[in-house]
Amino acid sequence: MKSMRWFAAVAAVVVSCLAFAGSALTLPADWRSWQHVKSMVIPDKAHGLYGFHHVYVHPKALAAYQKGKGYPEGALLAVPFYDVVVENGATSQGPLLKVAVMKRDKTATATGGWLYGAFDSTGKALELDARAGCHTCHEAKKDRDFVFSEWTP
Amino acid sequence: MKSMRWFAAVAAVVVSCLAFAGSALTLPADWRSWQHVKSMVIPDKAHGLYGFHHVYVHPKALAAYQKGKGYPEGALLAVPFYDVVVENGATSQGPLLKVAVMKRDKTATATGGWLYGAFDSTGKALELDARAGCHTCHEAKKDRDFVFSEWTP
Repeated sequence: MKSMRWFAAVAAVVVSCLAFAGSALTLPADWRSWQHVKSMVIPDKAHGLYGFHHVYVHPKALAAYQKGKGYPEGALLAVPFYDVVVENGATSQGPLLKVAVMKRDKTATATGGWLYGAFDSTGKALELDARAGCHTCHEAKKDRDFVFSEWTP
Repeated sequence: MKSMRWFAAVAAVVVSCLAFAGSALTLPADWRSWQHVKSMVIPDKAHGLYGFHHVYVHPKALAAYQKGKGYPEGALLAVPFYDVVVENGATSQGPLLKVAVMKRDKTATATGGWLYGAFDSTGKALELDARAGCHTCHEAKKDRDFVFSEWTP
């Protein structure tokens, strides 16, 4: 199923992104105002993708995101992770834990033209190796410009 | 807790909204592009608020939403509900089920200056009684212009 493929892909990417070192990317201040695409919850704290997360696409990247390719220089995607709050049969989002980011940059030739970054709730960069920790997994989606998640009309 | 109050409030409102008859509101075509605020999952199909839902605020209503009052004429809020897909420890959203909407309208004096509506996935209005089914519960939030959910920075 599409949701499973998406989940597996995002899981592989973010888990590995957060495990390595190095990134030239900073956290954009306005990511929360970008286009919300979809959300997912992984309530197991032992899981590398624990959290209530959303996928946001920068307005200038949205047309390419919807097509699945053709991202312009500077295109941005953000995936914030929030704590998971389960009460009375409802699962909601708690405080922000971290934000994963991709930015289109033609100089990032070793990583398919994307910069990868991850940041804590204060905007401080977390250690990662963009190639070994992120792009190696994204290469599986070369036909979609290395982006796993997809627009669902 | 704030999340519980929000949940209880939204639950009461939407359950009742969907149970009654009558609304002059139509579903705005662009609700998905509005500001995403927060999300919640209620996986029990027997629950009146079953679904993976998001809260979206129209850009022109966002400043008031963040302040908790002062909504301008025409201000819009939308709460889409999606099917819940649980696989491999992850909960994601499936197809759209319905969309609940509030629109600021000073002529709606019997309902605190808000029109209330709910629509199926095709945009067809569902039956509701805006006063008995919606506003009676919203009156508990008169000090926040009858809006339950709150912006979390």
